[in-house]
Amino acid sequence: MEKEKIAQAIEILHELDIDLWMVIDRESGLISDPVMDYVVGSGVTWLSFFLFFKNGEKHALVGNLDIEKIRRTGLFDTVSAYKGSPRTDLLELLNHHNPAKIAIDYSPDSAAADGLTHGNYLKLLELLQDSEFPARLVSAENVIAKIRGKKSTEELRRLKLACQKTLEIYGRLGQAIRPGMSEKDLADWITAEREKMGLAAAWEVSSCPAVFSGPQEIGAHSAPTANILKPGHVFNVDFGVVVDKYCSDLQRTWYILRPGEKEAPPDVQKGFTVLIESIRLAFAALKPGVRGLDIDQIARGYIVSQGYEEYPHALGHQVGRYAHDGGALLAPDWERYGKLPFMPLEKDQVFTIEPRIYIKDFGVATVEEMVVISAEGAEYLSQPQRELYLLKTNQ
Amino acid sequence: MEKEKIAQAIEILHELDIDLWMVIDRESGLISDPVMDYVVGSGVTWLSFFLFFKNGEKHALVGNLDIEKIRRTGLFDTVSAYKGSPRTDLLELLNHHNPAKIAIDYSPDSAAADGLTHGNYLKLLELLQDSEFPARLVSAENVIAKIRGKKSTEELRRLKLACQKTLEIYGRLGQAIRPGMSEKDLADWITAEREKMGLAAAWEVSSCPAVFSGPQEIGAHSAPTANILKPGHVFNVDFGVVVDKYCSDLQRTWYILRPGEKEAPPDVQKGFTVLIESIRLAFAALKPGVRGLDIDQIARGYIVSQGYEEYPHALGHQVGRYAHDGGALLAPDWERYGKLPFMPLEKDQVFTIEPRIYIKDFGVATVEEMVVISAEGAEYLSQPQRELYLLKTNQ
Repeated sequence: MEKEKIAQAIEILHELDIDLWMVIDRESGLISDPVMDYVVGSGVTWLSFFLFFKNGEKHALVGNLDIEKIRRTGLFDTVSAYKGSPRTDLLELLNHHNPAKIAIDYSPDSAAADGLTHGNYLKLLELLQDSEFPARLVSAENVIAKIRGKKSTEELRRLKLACQKTLEIYGRLGQAIRPGMSEKDLADWITAEREKMGLAAAWEVSSCPAVFSGPQEIGAHSAPTANILKPGHVFNVDFGVVVDKYCSDLQRTWYILRPGEKEAPPDVQKGFTVLIESIRLAFAALKPGVRGLDIDQIARGYIVSQGYEEYPHALGHQVGRYAHDGGALLAPDWERYGKLPFMPLEKDQVFTIEPRIYIKDFGVATVEEMVVISAEGAEYLSQPQRELYLLKTNQ
Repeated sequence: MEKEKIAQAIEILHELDIDLWMVIDRESGLISDPVMDYVVGSGVTWLSFFLFFKNGEKHALVGNLDIEKIRRTGLFDTVSAYKGSPRTDLLELLNHHNPAKIAIDYSPDSAAADGLTHGNYLKLLELLQDSEFPARLVSAENVIAKIRGKKSTEELRRLKLACQKTLEIYGRLGQAIRPGMSEKDLADWITAEREKMGLAAAWEVSSCPAVFSGPQEIGAHSAPTANILKPGHVFNVDFGVVVDKYCSDLQRTWYILRPGEKEAPPDVQKGFTVLIESIRLAFAALKPGVRGLDIDQIARGYIVSQGYEEYPHALGHQVGRYAHDGGALLAPDWERYGKLPFMPLEKDQVFTIEPRIYIKDFGVATVEEMVVISAEGAEYLSQPQRELYLLKTNQ
């Protein structure tokens, strides 16, 4: 898929009028630019430069013992190697093309676009000193936001499949519930199901799945605990899997019936209905060009208007090879989100929608769906949860 | 082991007279400071600050939904959480302690100490603007070099065990050689042995092991190829495993006897003997206080004096949780190694010694040992190769 992604990158350079995008990496096993996996597909040992020019040329400059590995990727027009310092070769490439705008991978707002370490940045400045190039450096955050954000048909297929596998496990969850089961027990059951299916977890296994049951403060923990899942609890699960490198990230909510109950109590039902309605309203407003800020406000404002506390996080994030993928965010204008809530949404971006409501005395209701922005709206990648799932522990 | 490493870090702050060491991370699943694994032991989602003060205080400042996870590590005196921006809490901590020197994780020379991304660095400057703290920032490269470099008894035990497991596989390798076997076939056999032992590879599996047979240019490739291991070939393997997070990295050299041969031809024997002698000379010179530069020169100079081309890389690197671990390096003063060859060696650091000789018409001889610097010299963690291993493919 690297060839497809590089071709996409070069189109993006045209769109953004950037002459050169330069990815810099070293000792990839220790710390590596996350975009390497998209456009190089291999790690390196020594300080390496991967140059993608607007005119379509692709050049790599690597330490001498990395050369064969990078040549074999077949992705670059030239792969040159240095022994002492990359300076001469790097300056030659830059002088030859004389790019007016050079994008490099740093971003205070988006971790996905922030793959350049500060030490490598300083090293770059040192290599370029006495040239005009340092003044031409700009952030590649928009390049990377588009590379990671705009999904191809194949990427969407994988994301949809990851959703489907996750929902299959959720679909069987009711059968697993037993009296006296803890959050941790249920998490272990989900993990065992995932492993039977041969799939990796979409994030750190200690909180994938997260299981959260009963009347506890929102966000009291993310790793599942020894809390027992009891009748009268609202409980939620947050979980995702990886299919061919692409993640799902979906939440569902259940209610455990108390003896004699046939349905959830009115307070629980009301909270769940408000939650689902907030998702519906946000979903209906999605389309290219709107800002994430405004989408978040639709769900947040509706929940608050119905008498609930606002959720203490963003409404949704992008999903791709990473469960919290980079770029535009459906988030309020809190300082911690930087400028991401203000970026207009684009066609083929994939977002979660994940509001949260605390239902007093019962627990936290959360539902998280995954959607793709289409030409004039959005479509679900997941089968959305419409009804509260009811369970008995003594079945 | 995080508690032990934090205690060590605080001693190091005294030694280096640094008032505060601050580790900064976010979205650890995407890109994460490699030192997080040593002193936090958990990843985070939102921009997080881990502050280790010379006076022994340890404070964490994290996004609101990360708080429980970090609290549970039990490593910090306080864990505070922010919703909007970490600015107020961060400035409060800094103003309260008023550190004169604040170390942060960037290093142009050492990837292991270069865990702060450039975007997070800019974010930090923005959070600290209008304060006096930006002028007090210094590189934590010496802190991290010591944390990763100076091994405890337990760390040495694990490294030694990783060496032993690697040598066990090398010891069985002679039995696996068959006529017509390729580099790739042998690599697959080694991988199967490793997997049977339930061990992970010490670096990217595509070149762990590297297998390199016969008269090819040094470093022509690192991934094993379809080249057939033939009688008359010198071949070498570069391989390592991970035991309880700690790596080995060892190379051995074999010669495949031609029909009628009982020993290696004189040219092969001579090349191998020079190689082993260069290791012996470098090893004998190791002790605390010497510079890696001088050790490299001993082996390099001896090899050149015997009529061979110098090896196109460093003589040795540190080993720890990463096969190419950070800090002082046994390397020539080539620009690409920055100041690492000039750092004096310290007791309890673990290094490889890995010279390389091209034996014309036969192949590349390499031997890589692992050693620990002791109070007055060095000790082998590996059982060193003294004799060239002879093989027959038709056994």
